[in-house]
Amino acid sequence: MVISKNMENLVAGSSVIRKLFEEGLQMAQIYGADKVYDFSLGNPASPVPEKVHEAIKDVLNNNSDAYVHGYMKNAGFEETRQAVADYLNKSFGMGYGGEDIVMTVGAAGAMNCIFRAILSPEDEVIAFAPFFGEYKNYASNYGGKLTVVPADTDTFDLNLKELDKNITEKTKCIIVNNPNNPSGRIYSKETIEELGKIVDEAEKRVGHPIYILCDEPYRQLAYDGKAVPYIPSIIKNSIYIYSYSKTLSIPGERIGYLAISKNADCYDELIGAFVVANRCLGYVNAPSLFQLVISRCQDVTVDLDFYDRNRKVLYDSLTKLGFDVVKPEGAFYLLVKSPIEDCDKFVELAKEQHIIFVNTMTFGCPGYVRIAYCVDYEMIKRSINAFKQLAIKCGISS
Amino acid sequence: MVISKNMENLVAGSSVIRKLFEEGLQMAQIYGADKVYDFSLGNPASPVPEKVHEAIKDVLNNNSDAYVHGYMKNAGFEETRQAVADYLNKSFGMGYGGEDIVMTVGAAGAMNCIFRAILSPEDEVIAFAPFFGEYKNYASNYGGKLTVVPADTDTFDLNLKELDKNITEKTKCIIVNNPNNPSGRIYSKETIEELGKIVDEAEKRVGHPIYILCDEPYRQLAYDGKAVPYIPSIIKNSIYIYSYSKTLSIPGERIGYLAISKNADCYDELIGAFVVANRCLGYVNAPSLFQLVISRCQDVTVDLDFYDRNRKVLYDSLTKLGFDVVKPEGAFYLLVKSPIEDCDKFVELAKEQHIIFVNTMTFGCPGYVRIAYCVDYEMIKRSINAFKQLAIKCGISS
Repeated sequence: MVISKNMENLVAGSSVIRKLFEEGLQMAQIYGADKVYDFSLGNPASPVPEKVHEAIKDVLNNNSDAYVHGYMKNAGFEETRQAVADYLNKSFGMGYGGEDIVMTVGAAGAMNCIFRAILSPEDEVIAFAPFFGEYKNYASNYGGKLTVVPADTDTFDLNLKELDKNITEKTKCIIVNNPNNPSGRIYSKETIEELGKIVDEAEKRVGHPIYILCDEPYRQLAYDGKAVPYIPSIIKNSIYIYSYSKTLSIPGERIGYLAISKNADCYDELIGAFVVANRCLGYVNAPSLFQLVISRCQDVTVDLDFYDRNRKVLYDSLTKLGFDVVKPEGAFYLLVKSPIEDCDKFVELAKEQHIIFVNTMTFGCPGYVRIAYCVDYEMIKRSINAFKQLAIKCGISS
Repeated sequence: MVISKNMENLVAGSSVIRKLFEEGLQMAQIYGADKVYDFSLGNPASPVPEKVHEAIKDVLNNNSDAYVHGYMKNAGFEETRQAVADYLNKSFGMGYGGEDIVMTVGAAGAMNCIFRAILSPEDEVIAFAPFFGEYKNYASNYGGKLTVVPADTDTFDLNLKELDKNITEKTKCIIVNNPNNPSGRIYSKETIEELGKIVDEAEKRVGHPIYILCDEPYRQLAYDGKAVPYIPSIIKNSIYIYSYSKTLSIPGERIGYLAISKNADCYDELIGAFVVANRCLGYVNAPSLFQLVISRCQDVTVDLDFYDRNRKVLYDSLTKLGFDVVKPEGAFYLLVKSPIEDCDKFVELAKEQHIIFVNTMTFGCPGYVRIAYCVDYEMIKRSINAFKQLAIKCGISS
């Protein structure tokens, strides 16, 4: 083996989601795109907002090439960082300055910068199941380990009663993904306040700060008017992570940021390390054109109805067919309990009906599958008959 | 300290170049941009080629948003990878398929993917001085160590006679940066063939492949018709790394790639690991719009005259003023020997004249400074008098 030991496992257990996505592309070539129902990936299908098109034109037409496509400070353009800070201050009553923002290559890039900065080998990161499986890989890049707090499959709320026993002296941070991928659960203000209390106590015990990484790319996707609390306004030692992938439907462009308040412990040390990590991990800076584009799109909101329609029709249809579905409050994922004991077989049976979804085993939530409903409504409607056949095959419908 | 041990050193010794660049921005605000002569950074000043503007329009106008801004395979768009393979095959007589190309977040992103894939803690990477200082940081991200082969300051050619003694059983790869940053030296076909022989012998001795990482963002910048050999056509175990930053003057957009031939040892293992590394390091994929833009710009060449004019006037002027200058054959950097013993003081004296350049101590080449002449010709002309004052201060001119 010429690849590193630590890489072998990653390659062997490579992303199930990505593998399914690539399988879906192949199936579409064989059977025709309209006969494959690919619910594998969080690739948002809602149209790119017109404001983004306008911003691209504005940036390209009214600035020098050297500015738009050249290097800037590793942390990003001043105007972009200020626009982000202003937006967060206005929206959540915070007091960020532009210097508290680091523009990153998406939320995944932000999380890697943070892990690179704070993790030494054997350090621990806590995630609550169900969680986005890549967290484990991000931590492993720097020798870190992911500790998983098991899911509370009754409520899918943060399983706080299991948290404290998982915090050790090696714990550097706790990831909270709100709204949650894959459960669609939104954690309430009360839940976050309770989390804050537990972490406060734990910090005293272990003698060092434990940061909450607030991974919130789905923040705008909250249905039925449900509020998503802004964690950094509740818990001091928070690092906020955002991506424009879902809100603006531009996941391929890799644009996001991290924000840390000056009130956080060791602020100076951290902000400096994040910027250096952004450079040394080879990102150098977040893509320049799209930094300037998102500066001009801070007030753009997602087309919530687009996804809500999908949510409703899928939830209703699948429930009616006899599936046990977790009703999502946010994001664009839906958990379905496997109606048969072997969840892998459930995924295979679905594939026979040209339905592609993901076993959430790698999300720390065995026995469920994730349906990403960030797809065309028409595809969902076409898929319902295939789901019906699947229900019959699984023996829950006739 | 909440940041990791390994990060502390990075932050403490943070990029001298970047610090100077940011200092230059401040000086420009104080004294006026036209009175500061900033030669710190490889931020190319030649205009973005018209073909790039056309390609941006073409991509945006003739494709769906979902395609242009959405997710694709982690390795990149099929059409982009095929365009790159076709270009390399046509230019260098290679036999790459699109599947041998991984689109990356610049050359820095490519190198991080490779290091993530092949380095275990304590593994060694060899670089020939003078070398781009960031190599050391890239290796350290994964616990790797950089072994530096000292510069041959008589010729600034690859110091091959010092290579073999630095290869150990921990050596995983050797970086060759051609044309070289910061010396501007181009390594000839004969030099590369000689390198191939040494590495061949060493591979037998250590019992595993040693890959040549061909870091070639400056490939198109070769003056006086000098040829830059294509290393993968000479040495089997090569991994080619390219960036469009310099050729197309778009360093902020972060677009590049790595290419590996199926003839390389352990090809299958490596290509799989590179793609997984691209995902897990949080790049996920190279920025999508610019992947499609560069597919359409494979035949665009750099405006060599733009930089050649700068090279000539600087080389001639500084030589005339009594400075000891290494004449560059490629890239857009120029090494000047410090005329006083304390090279840091030389940098400070230059700053007093509003000239900003970098001590190449961190490039493994003490006693020299690097002048990045990828700037406006007019700025260079304005700077000559300041260089004259500097020569007087240093006592080499009157």
